[in-house]
Order: sequence, then structure tokens, then C-alpha cells
Amino acid sequence: MEPQKDTEKTTNTNTAPAPANESKPKPQKKEEKKFTLKTPKGTRDYDPFQMAVREKVFKLITDCFKRHGAVTIETPQFELKDTLTGKYGEDSKLIYDLQDQGGEISSLRYDLTVPFARYVAMNKIKQMKRYQIGRVYRRDNPAMNKGRFREFYQCDFDIAGEYDVMIPDAEALKLMTEILDQAEIGKYKIKLNHRKLLDGIFEISGVAPDKFRTICSSVDKLDKMKWVDVKKEMVETKGLAPEIADKIGKWVELAGAPMTLLTKLETEKWCDGNASATKALEELKTLFEYLKCFDCLDRVEFNLSLARGLDYYTGLIYEAVITEGEEGVGSIAGGGRYDDLIGMFGGQKVPSIGFSIGIERIFSIMENRAKVQEMRDNETQVFVASFDPLLEERMKICAQLWKANIKAELLLKATPKIQPQLKVANDKKIPFVVLFGKSEIEKGIVNVKTMGTGEQVAVNRDELVTFMLKKIESMSNNNNNNTTKDTKVVVPSDPKSETKN
Amino acid sequence: MEPQKDTEKTTNTNTAPAPANESKPKPQKKEEKKFTLKTPKGTRDYDPFQMAVREKVFKLITDCFKRHGAVTIETPQFELKDTLTGKYGEDSKLIYDLQDQGGEISSLRYDLTVPFARYVAMNKIKQMKRYQIGRVYRRDNPAMNKGRFREFYQCDFDIAGEYDVMIPDAEALKLMTEILDQAEIGKYKIKLNHRKLLDGIFEISGVAPDKFRTICSSVDKLDKMKWVDVKKEMVETKGLAPEIADKIGKWVELAGAPMTLLTKLETEKWCDGNASATKALEELKTLFEYLKCFDCLDRVEFNLSLARGLDYYTGLIYEAVITEGEEGVGSIAGGGRYDDLIGMFGGQKVPSIGFSIGIERIFSIMENRAKVQEMRDNETQVFVASFDPLLEERMKICAQLWKANIKAELLLKATPKIQPQLKVANDKKIPFVVLFGKSEIEKGIVNVKTMGTGEQVAVNRDELVTFMLKKIESMSNNNNNNTTKDTKVVVPSDPKSETKN
Repeated sequence: MEPQKDTEKTTNTNTAPAPANESKPKPQKKEEKKFTLKTPKGTRDYDPFQMAVREKVFKLITDCFKRHGAVTIETPQFELKDTLTGKYGEDSKLIYDLQDQGGEISSLRYDLTVPFARYVAMNKIKQMKRYQIGRVYRRDNPAMNKGRFREFYQCDFDIAGEYDVMIPDAEALKLMTEILDQAEIGKYKIKLNHRKLLDGIFEISGVAPDKFRTICSSVDKLDKMKWVDVKKEMVETKGLAPEIADKIGKWVELAGAPMTLLTKLETEKWCDGNASATKALEELKTLFEYLKCFDCLDRVEFNLSLARGLDYYTGLIYEAVITEGEEGVGSIAGGGRYDDLIGMFGGQKVPSIGFSIGIERIFSIMENRAKVQEMRDNETQVFVASFDPLLEERMKICAQLWKANIKAELLLKATPKIQPQLKVANDKKIPFVVLFGKSEIEKGIVNVKTMGTGEQVAVNRDELVTFMLKKIESMSNNNNNNTTKDTKVVVPSDPKSETKN
Repeated sequence: MEPQKDTEKTTNTNTAPAPANESKPKPQKKEEKKFTLKTPKGTRDYDPFQMAVREKVFKLITDCFKRHGAVTIETPQFELKDTLTGKYGEDSKLIYDLQDQGGEISSLRYDLTVPFARYVAMNKIKQMKRYQIGRVYRRDNPAMNKGRFREFYQCDFDIAGEYDVMIPDAEALKLMTEILDQAEIGKYKIKLNHRKLLDGIFEISGVAPDKFRTICSSVDKLDKMKWVDVKKEMVETKGLAPEIADKIGKWVELAGAPMTLLTKLETEKWCDGNASATKALEELKTLFEYLKCFDCLDRVEFNLSLARGLDYYTGLIYEAVITEGEEGVGSIAGGGRYDDLIGMFGGQKVPSIGFSIGIERIFSIMENRAKVQEMRDNETQVFVASFDPLLEERMKICAQLWKANIKAELLLKATPKIQPQLKVANDKKIPFVVLFGKSEIEKGIVNVKTMGTGEQVAVNRDELVTFMLKKIESMSNNNNNNTTKDTKVVVPSDPKSETKN
């Protein structure tokens, strides 16, 4: 292990302007050395309010995962560089490396899928239904006002293992709809396609097999580019004959209700004679039947223009997009089947399907909603305040409440006036205040004030805990009856980097 | 942004033997290149069982924090290198740097205290009671069988802000006892001392002021070394006169019940005439009074040999040690007052107190206990199985249960036999199985089997959800009456790196 020699010599003079919604960095007085007080580019802090929202979102999502019997794992924040090599194609340049300080060469994880595949291969696991929530790292150009960071959360679900055709795929899709429904992100649809159908289409259209992947990449751009531009790329950049491109163009226009489009393709015999496409259509038919049983087929759109960026998909692919809201269509989740990835680590092949939720976008949506609802960043139930400087009595009462698992606070001053104490209770939106002076202590009572109504009652000190527990229970019952629907939400655009699985 | 050029050239030939409890890496067949399938040195995966334990520990601890009104923040996994510079003294050599890929120079966070101080300074916060749980990184020599990792969780609590003397300090200590009590780690005590008292002792003994910090470091070693060896270091390495060392030696022998030792020191006038020590004793007296009000003074031992490693402590210091169990005394939490750290980032000075829980040790203790109790790694409540190949019926019933927020699973096969289905339910310790064949479906009923008792009853299909909800409620009421006490636990030794605050 070599000691670092450069701790004193580095003087950070990086003055790149901070993106709009980054916590405002303020240059420090040049006392000791030039140094900008900020977080690294593309990263951010979460303040207590954002953390309260985050906790709510995590709970909502993990509840959905657990309802399906999923277990969770955690993997290190960095992996051996070799583990990530050869998995991300061109995007490998976005991987963060750790400095070579002697020993192994490591990189920060780029997503949660490759570490999961490494975990399954390393532990020779045959079957696993797992979820994982964690931060991943991409040295991309951040656009933080659009919710694109270099460090961001991903939230993944995968079913690894040999099962029967389209059953795990159907459960993954069902689970995705449950999460999106419960997060109340607004109207959405799940665009769905099959890699083998795309391959079939390319074959039928006359694309040479060695061009399948690159033409697939062009098709993937249809959610951002018009067909004429995609065609131009196919013809001019990738050397495809214009008439072949036109054939593809006719196919990728097709989108609609799953069963309707499937029936149309079957009736009009579009794919007859092509083995790959025929197999894909059979599988899709099975899938649609299963989704009907799971009561979620209505969320799905069969869309032949969906291609998905990543190379490792081998079957079903899908992507959820929001279809309403100020920012229009935006991808919020995506996934697909990858039957060969785990096998890349040597040893067994474990076919898998999974998806990734663009959880940073759900954070933004929920954060805006929470602001409207004036959500609290703390959970304190009781504030203990006194008129006279009765610090020790305030402490004793707090200790009593804590012992009964009641969330309580006092002002950490020896002789505070009453006003600053009530101000803290108010600022923190604490629902109850226990209030007393010398005369109450002498009588063995305290006053309990309900902040919402101003109502105040005297309670015997030895009955305080029981009284507060009842008060808190009835408050929490009332709160459970409040709903959070119909709140207007703002949806930031394009979280592509988050939803790539 | 520069693309990486070395993705193909690195061939990892690191063959350092894996520590004992690391998931067994298995060398792969030399198919494409030499590559060891493992996590980086000093890191580990958490499997689903460990994650279930971890979730339990996090909940227990965050519940305690929230009871005291603490809020939480998250900071990036890495900071600008300059943010960490000059904060860790000699240990700075253990900091992980990110590779310079153009742009800023960053390092993985070494603890949660410095990022918190950076956050408070950057946002010009005047007061904050915050907790934070997250992973930190130290390029130390890992001893993973002793619970020492290069990547490990820290769990910090801090109160930043101008308050009255010893009140936040008392609340931090109270909170620490609540966490350790509830984690049921076994008997423990909190050793407590005051940096200003140590300074006074050095002054009284005749140590030159410029040697205070280095002599303090020697005293810190008393938990691992005998006095003769510490004295040897003081005299031979640090050039202290032997008679001065002997004076210090008399002091640091002193330890005992807080009020008793305090009274002894006062009565015997040990510190009279030394301003620093007198002030410290006054503060400690105040603290002990407050801890009495908080009903936790009995957990504390006033111990003059406690010095704590870090330079930035300025007042109260403390460390919790386990006093029973196979591995004897081991530090499990530690903290102290640091009034100058936040001011090091320029701008305002914000006096603060905090502590760090050695949460990896609590994980180990709880993990052993959970193994004994055969804790589950999943929460599935109902397994849906059929005798005949009734996949679609199984799917429909699952969808019904999921809709009612019941945790349910089915085997993802089209035509499974009944035995493998029941095996899954058994292996996962799922309490209830919904069971049916063609004849039940025709009659509009299903059977519900309680796995523990073998009891089986027929239920009308349209009453299944209501029936299951009742069953689950009564089961969960029973479970809440089970306690987890009196389980033997094994305590791993010395988590020093985790508990340094």
C-alpha cells in the first residue's frame, strides 16, 4: 500500500458553472487555499425533505417487490474492472475507474444488472427472484435540471432461472404495472416488442445478418428521431439499400392493442415462412394470454418500433412511458429478457428477465407532490416545552415518552423562553406540545396542546404516556383516511440513462 | 471527456488468497481470458438472508433516531479530494481515489462525518440533528473474518448547532444507550472522558503543550497495550521524561462510576489550579446530572484512560464496549464533541457532537441470532399451487391476492407436479398454501393449507381474499408475541475501523 504524496499539492481550481438545481456552491474566502465548497460534478446531496420522499418511494416499491416474493441482495459499489469489461459496448467509456493505488483495478458499478449476473455466476445460483436498489455511476454529461446525474439510484427486479416460456416475463410485467400504478405517476403505457421479431423483420426485409445489430440501433432512435432521419442514417451511414429501409419502415409503423395487432399480423400472414418471427409471435401470444390472467394486458401496447439500446437482450423487450403531463412522453422504466449475460461469466447459462425503474423520475414526481402537500421531514409527535427554566423536568418527561416509543423532542437550551420553544414545534409541524410551568409541576400535572386546533387539556403527569398514545393513535387513524390523489405533478423529460437496464 | 483506451489490455492476475468468510471465488475456465470471478479485495456481497437481517437492524436503529426527531440526509459516495484533505491525519493514506479521467479529482468518502460537515458548511446550516447510514471506504488491510472490510456501513448521529453546555451531549449519549439496549447486543458500558481533562492532566503532569496530541495518541493505545508498553513509547519514542510518564500513569488508572470518581477528584483536589481540567470536571458534573434525568447514567463509566484516536475532538469523548460474550471486550460505538470541524470549511463555526455505531458488528450479532431462529429471507405469505396443469387459474388467484396486498407466489412452470410446488413453499417457509385441482375449480372452491399445522380447509373462491387476510392477521398477532431474547450470540472482535467517528 503506497502512501499518497499529493495531499497538499492539489489546488482545485475547477470553476465549471454548477447546473441549475445543484445545491448552490458558494466560493469560500481564500483563507488557506483555493477550494470550491461543492459536491463533485453530476452528484448531489439529498436534504431531509428529499430523504423523507425517498423513503416513501423506496417503501412503496419494496412493498411491491416483496408482494411477489422477491428477495434482495447488495453488491459492492465497485467491481473488478474485468467484471464490467465487454458488457456495455460503446458506453464503456462512461465507466468511472478507481485510481490504481496498488492491487486490483476496480471501477464503480455502471448498473445493477452486471453485478447481479456476476453474483449469480459466482455463487452458482440456478434460480433467483431478486430486487436491488442502489446507486450507480456514469461519467455522462449531466443534465441535472432534467434529472440526469452521474450518480443516481437504480431500482432493479430480475427473475433468473430456467422456467417455462413467458411465465416469468408475464410476472415481471405485472409487477411493473403494480409499481407504476401505486406510484401514481399519471397515465402510462408499456411499449413491448420482441428481439426475435425484429430479427425476423430484418430478415424478411432483406437486411444482411451482420447488420442486424446496427440496424436495430437505428430503429431504437425512433422515439427521438423521425423516420426520414432514421432512414437517412440507415442508408447513408450504415449502407442499407433504400428499398430495404422502406420495407423496415412499413413494419415499424405498426403499433396497437396487443391482441388486435397480433391477429392482424397472423391474418395477413406478414411473417409466414420466417422462423424467428413466427416463434416470437407464438411467444407473444402466450404472453398476452398470461397478462390477461394477471389483469394487466390493458397497460400494454405492442409496438414494432421499440428496439431498446442494450446489446444483451435476446427476447422480450419493453419500456414504460408516461403519456400525460407537461413534459409529454417520457420513459420511466424498461427491461427485457437476457438469456446469455450470466453465461458470459463462464460456467452455467441462466436465462433471465428483468427491468429497471427510473426511480429518480419517480422521486421528482413524488417530491413535487410532497411539496404541495407540505410533507414533513421529521416524524416528531410531541414537543416538550416549559414556561420556567425547568430543563430537568423537560428531560425527565422526554425520557418517559421515549421509553414508551413516543417520538419527542425538547429545545436543547437550559433556560429558553416559551416563544422559541413553540416556534420549533411550529416550524417542524409537530402535532402536540406538552407544556408546563412551576405551578403545573407542583400540582403534578402538565398541559397537552394540540397544535392543529389549539385545544389544550391538563393531564396528570403519571397518565401522560397513556394519554399521548391515545392521542397519537387517533391522529394516525385520521391521517390514513387522507388520500394523495389528484395532485398535479410535473414530469421531467427523458431519464434514458436511468432506465436502461 | 476522454474515452478509456485500456479496456482490453488489463488481464487481472491478482491471486491474493480470499479471506475466510468471503463468498468463495472460483477461478473460471480459461475461455477468453484470465479472470477471477470475485468481488474486489475487502468488499463483499450481502445475500438475501443477510439483507433481511440488515433491514431489521436498519429499522431498529432508524426508529431510535426518529424517536429523537432526527432527520436524515444523503451525500454522494465520493467527494472532491480537497474536501477530505487535512481531516484524517496519518490515515489519509487509506483514502480511495477515483482515477483522473479529466475534470475534478475525487475520492470515495472515508466516513460520514466529514461529508456531513461539508454539507452543513455548504448550506450554511446553523442547527441540525441528523442521522445517516451509508457505506464508507478505507484502503486498510482487511480482516474480513473479524468483520473488518474496506467497504463497510457506518451509522452516524450528530447534533450540530449552538446549544447549552452538555445538553446535546446528554441526548446523544441517551440515544446511544437506547440503540444498544434495543439491539440486545449483550452487556455493555460506555467509557467516557473529556479532552480538556486530558489536556489538564498533561499540563499538571508537566507535558509540554506541543506534545499534548502525540501523548494523547499513546494514551489511546491503552485499550490494546499494557501501561509498561505505552510508557515505553512515551519515553523512548516520544522523548517524555520517565517521571512525567509515571504521573500520567497514575491518572489514567482512574476509572469508575461517574459521580463517585468525580467526587473523589473534587475531594482530593487533584485538579485544583488547572483551568482546563476544572472546566472539564464542571461540564462532566452537569452532564452526569442530565444523564440521571435521562435515566441512563448507570450505563456510563468515567474512564480517564479513554483518549480516542481522532484529532478533531475538542470536548466530551466516549466509546461503548461490550463487556460479555466469547470475544470479550470490543468497541461497538464511539463519538465525541468536535467544535471546530465544520469551521474548517470556512465561514461559520458550528459546534457539534455525534457518534458512530459499529453497525457491521451489530449485523454479525443479529445474523448469528437470526440463524439460530431460522429467520426467513422472503416475506411470502401464500403459495398458490395446483394438482392439475391449471396455470391460468394459479395466475388469476395470484393476481387476486396481490390486488389485496397479500404476498403470494406461484411456480413459474406451465405444468408442474404438486411435489415440487410444495417443496418451494416448504423451502421458503411460506406459511399458507392455496391448493386446488380441476374438481375444486369446478366446484368454485380452493383448499387453504396451513403449513405449520397441516390443517386444511375448503374455502369458496370468492371468499378467499377475506379468509386469507384473517388468517394472516391472526398469524402476525401470534408472531408479535414471540420474543427474541436469551439467544446466544457470538461477538467478533475489534471493529475499530468502524467505530472511529
